[in-house]
Amino acid sequence: MTTVEKVRARAESDARTAGCYLNPDKEFLNNLFEGLKANEDRYGYPSCPCRLATGKFELDRDIICPCDYRDPDVVQYGACYCALFVNKDIFEGKKSTEPVPERRPIEKQNRAYGATAVTAIPKQTEPARAQAAKDPAMVQQKLWYCKQCGYVCYREEPPYVCPVCKAKRELFAELVIQAAPRT
Amino acid sequence: MTTVEKVRARAESDARTAGCYLNPDKEFLNNLFEGLKANEDRYGYPSCPCRLATGKFELDRDIICPCDYRDPDVVQYGACYCALFVNKDIFEGKKSTEPVPERRPIEKQNRAYGATAVTAIPKQTEPARAQAAKDPAMVQQKLWYCKQCGYVCYREEPPYVCPVCKAKRELFAELVIQAAPRT
Amino acid sequence: MTTVEKVRARAESDARTAGCYLNPDKEFLNNLFEGLKANEDRYGYPSCPCRLATGKFELDRDIICPCDYRDPDVVQYGACYCALFVNKDIFEGKKSTEPVPERRPIEKQNRAYGATAVTAIPKQTEPARAQAAKDPAMVQQKLWYCKQCGYVCYREEPPYVCPVCKAKRELFAELVIQAAPRT
Repeated sequence: MTTVEKVRARAESDARTAGCYLNPDKEFLNNLFEGLKANEDRYGYPSCPCRLATGKFELDRDIICPCDYRDPDVVQYGACYCALFVNKDIFEGKKSTEPVPERRPIEKQNRAYGATAVTAIPKQTEPARAQAAKDPAMVQQKLWYCKQCGYVCYREEPPYVCPVCKAKRELFAELVIQAAPRT
Repeated sequence: MTTVEKVRARAESDARTAGCYLNPDKEFLNNLFEGLKANEDRYGYPSCPCRLATGKFELDRDIICPCDYRDPDVVQYGACYCALFVNKDIFEGKKSTEPVPERRPIEKQNRAYGATAVTAIPKQTEPARAQAAKDPAMVQQKLWYCKQCGYVCYREEPPYVCPVCKAKRELFAELVIQAAPRT
Repeated sequence: MTTVEKVRARAESDARTAGCYLNPDKEFLNNLFEGLKANEDRYGYPSCPCRLATGKFELDRDIICPCDYRDPDVVQYGACYCALFVNKDIFEGKKSTEPVPERRPIEKQNRAYGATAVTAIPKQTEPARAQAAKDPAMVQQKLWYCKQCGYVCYREEPPYVCPVCKAKRELFAELVIQAAPRT
């Protein structure tokens, strides 16, 4: 079991590293921390307190806090979907939060929520590869690099914002390794 | 088209992540943001407002803000070349900015500014490899890792300062991948 | 030779990036900076001022400041082993530092301090590989990635805390590269 205190410390550290701020409303914030704690105790990872997790890590990965959508939402709306993380103007009270639409792609929502439903038994004759392509839990990961700063990561898709230099997703490209001969 | 507001938000987030500060002079800062916005609208990326870009991404990569030279300049002089980013003492008014010499290597300046000039038609007989070596737009990238913290990046040269642990460039080494046999 | 000023600037930048704070006690802090400066001048890298370094980079790597143990110690105790880096509550004076036990694994301590002692001459007949396994200076490094955010690093073991998304060590997995055929 984690504690609200640890959840709060992680969020503080995370906001500082990512270059954003925590919501200045202490009570509001505390409710979100309680939600994160509940999710971490339930699933083993602190999935977003404002979204429905499946309990399957592979399907929830993009909504584990800090979720994949935090950075572009803070850039565009000044706050993440939950308003847990905000930008400087909102932190300092110069601006108010506004509603943030759900950026999570419908395909990922379907994959996550569809995966919990009953699925038909696959035909024996179908090749394994085609089967895998249909299996929502099979996630293909690749190496990506930021063409601006060189940051390397291994994910299904590049991040929306480079965590190092803040370049946009468009500046990421797939990194194909030409390996040295094995010695 | 981007907005000055978005340019400012990115710079704020970026300074916080990198562990430095924005210049405390609001008007000075705003002029730099206007320059960054103009460059982003013109080239598609926010190249340094104090340097001449070519408009060719490969040649301008090292001077896209935050430029490759920001971190060592903030370490050594307390400010980047533009004085957009400063250290804590300058941010708090305890010290003033001083002139920051151009750290960009002359080879990169030549490569960038030479590449915009008319070049002679290559001889047919010259091998492609030798040709590529002379072509200023052909940039060889490698995988590097920080020997202190393990940070991995894919760049022409290692960063001057590790973005994760702040180790100096000398602590980076090339990372040669011994690949697993393809299955 | 480095300067205390440079050591301080690096620590400030590093704390900000990592999402923690420097100890608010200026005199205490200054003594630590003097220690870091002495170590950097002596060894070429700023090993922890509160631990005994060997002068061999490979054996000291985990205790170069910021050491491998800083992040989990700040999470658990609110301060690193030295109390150079602290969390927000201690920085703001809301809490006091408490003693932080040594988290460095005994194997690493033995490897480091044993390696400075006289060792027996290896038998000729022993295969090189078995020999290497016993040599404390031979450190096997691997590629790791964070299953939450995709951060990639090349280290002996994964970090205790992901420097990008703050996921715990348990969320790291080894990254095995399936290389493209060499062209």
